[in-house]
Amino acid sequence: MSRVFNFSAGPSALPEEVLRQAAGEMLDYQGTGMGVMEMSHRGKTFMGIAAQAEADLRELLAIPASYRLLFMQGGALGENAIVPLNLLGARTTADYVNTGHWSMKSIGEASRYATINVAASSDDRGFTYVPPQSSWRLSDDPAYLHICTNETIAGVEYQWTPDTGGVPLVADMSSNILSRAVDVSRFGVIYGGAQKNCGAAGLTIVIVRDDLLDRALALCPSAFNYRIVAENNSMYNTPATYSLYIAGLVFQWLKRQGGVAGIEARNKAKAALMYDAIDRSALYLNRIAPADRSRMNVTFFLRRDELTPVFLSEAEALGLAALRGHRAVGGVRASIYNAMPLAGVEALVAHMRDFERRHT
Amino acid sequence: MSRVFNFSAGPSALPEEVLRQAAGEMLDYQGTGMGVMEMSHRGKTFMGIAAQAEADLRELLAIPASYRLLFMQGGALGENAIVPLNLLGARTTADYVNTGHWSMKSIGEASRYATINVAASSDDRGFTYVPPQSSWRLSDDPAYLHICTNETIAGVEYQWTPDTGGVPLVADMSSNILSRAVDVSRFGVIYGGAQKNCGAAGLTIVIVRDDLLDRALALCPSAFNYRIVAENNSMYNTPATYSLYIAGLVFQWLKRQGGVAGIEARNKAKAALMYDAIDRSALYLNRIAPADRSRMNVTFFLRRDELTPVFLSEAEALGLAALRGHRAVGGVRASIYNAMPLAGVEALVAHMRDFERRHT
Repeated sequence: MSRVFNFSAGPSALPEEVLRQAAGEMLDYQGTGMGVMEMSHRGKTFMGIAAQAEADLRELLAIPASYRLLFMQGGALGENAIVPLNLLGARTTADYVNTGHWSMKSIGEASRYATINVAASSDDRGFTYVPPQSSWRLSDDPAYLHICTNETIAGVEYQWTPDTGGVPLVADMSSNILSRAVDVSRFGVIYGGAQKNCGAAGLTIVIVRDDLLDRALALCPSAFNYRIVAENNSMYNTPATYSLYIAGLVFQWLKRQGGVAGIEARNKAKAALMYDAIDRSALYLNRIAPADRSRMNVTFFLRRDELTPVFLSEAEALGLAALRGHRAVGGVRASIYNAMPLAGVEALVAHMRDFERRHT
Repeated sequence: MSRVFNFSAGPSALPEEVLRQAAGEMLDYQGTGMGVMEMSHRGKTFMGIAAQAEADLRELLAIPASYRLLFMQGGALGENAIVPLNLLGARTTADYVNTGHWSMKSIGEASRYATINVAASSDDRGFTYVPPQSSWRLSDDPAYLHICTNETIAGVEYQWTPDTGGVPLVADMSSNILSRAVDVSRFGVIYGGAQKNCGAAGLTIVIVRDDLLDRALALCPSAFNYRIVAENNSMYNTPATYSLYIAGLVFQWLKRQGGVAGIEARNKAKAALMYDAIDRSALYLNRIAPADRSRMNVTFFLRRDELTPVFLSEAEALGLAALRGHRAVGGVRASIYNAMPLAGVEALVAHMRDFERRHT
């Protein structure tokens, strides 16, 4: 068996240690005589797995006691509706900052339930930057302000946390949660699909401040009502038990990497290596404002576009997989989430240099 | 490693062959150099896995071409809201038959969106039977009629399919889908969580007749809108990819068992063995109307209730796990879904006989 370096934007690479442990425990979890996938979610063993995962994630993100951690289903696109269904309360307006594809999905969905004020947008320059907060135009009394902290398609990321005063800040962190330190107390709600930095698709992580648990519309389905999910310790309905178990293994792996601080240092180094290789090159070009470049999704274009398919097929042959840019923008995209080792980035940079040498 | 016989009501036992294959492919699926959990849902390999799972399930249930098969998230409890959000259209009433806990959950959730007419209920006798269709009182023009074909707590199951004329019949089949032949063309919608007969929690299976795809309320979230999910081949949002892969392995295993006909014969034999052991005993008692006894969840009580904990702890020691009855009713519950081998039922029956011999 030979593993490739998998640059997929999500679902994406998992730490080999996690996969080995999961494979080893598939038929018998710690002497119980059954696999995790086969266990009642209400049994002692699985309750222990869920409690440990919660404790580890709370520790990793230093989640304050005044926040609830929910394990839900439906992914970030589901959450795009679940957020307004839970947070609008008596208000009828919400503010959104539009930094690209995922922001627009959120806006479209929320428009079913509220008047949406787009407080700022970077569509004037192809979503290649994050609008500075000084340019934002907030509405008078929004239920919340929503941002997407990392846009995977263009590869643009907030390197700062907005100050929204008393307005709850809601963040879709699907693609950069756990990749960097974040002060949870600055947010009202943080949510994300698990399939990038936390494990397997099917699990949605929601971190919600206690005082926001009681604003749900009567129309909000119980299975997606934050208060009901919180009161049932994420077991109102059967959670995606295996995805939650995998996330727990990833959290333990992260702790062995030195926690979020440790992985952030590594992520910085990986991204610096990539952007440095691009910036020093006469062939490759990144279009994102330098201050807003994503550490998770590094995008670049070849100045000779006809070489792009050649670059990609040679990469594939070298075991550098899933580098094709999103169909909406083309080019190349290297998604280098937590589980991508430095060696993978080094191998990609070596290919970039070698390719450029041979083609200039 | 020693595997137990796992009688859990769900999540529940999986075929050992399925778990072995999943463990073997965890780090490298068929030479791709990555595991299924790490793959983009839009890549060729995973699209192939999803297409095969769909084709196999269509074949197993003989789903007519005029029905769409959707892979969703949120489980049956999520679907309890998603059904009315999708099917009410301009109507304001829906009919429900109440046969127990899961029916009541469905009714409670649907009440958010419509006036619910309970067409029949077996609460008068502790949900120990299925009300015959002659007793049902349908409303004038309901959007649909909803049943739960198997109630896991009391252990009661429809052995017949209602005739609802032109009213779409909607069935929660979470706990008996794929366990017996069913004429899909008699239903408008069939749905169920995957964690009993189809595999891992996190996946919801929905089978919906084409003409019901266009009745969604404007408030229905896109991620849960049947039309949108159908048009995107269940990839509007990232599906629970690993759970879908496991379901695919289960479908292939089922085909090797002779399909639904083959497994139904085995399920009949397993259930007959259990009920026969109960009925011949002076110690054990099943309270369900014989014609409505569940083949999936066999419940029984010990006439000397003080012996129940002894029975259960001895069973546990013999490797017969998760037999405790639901806390709402007590007693003993043996969930004997597709993956429970005959040998497991035989071992349980042997324990029942031995226990009775020693205690009378």
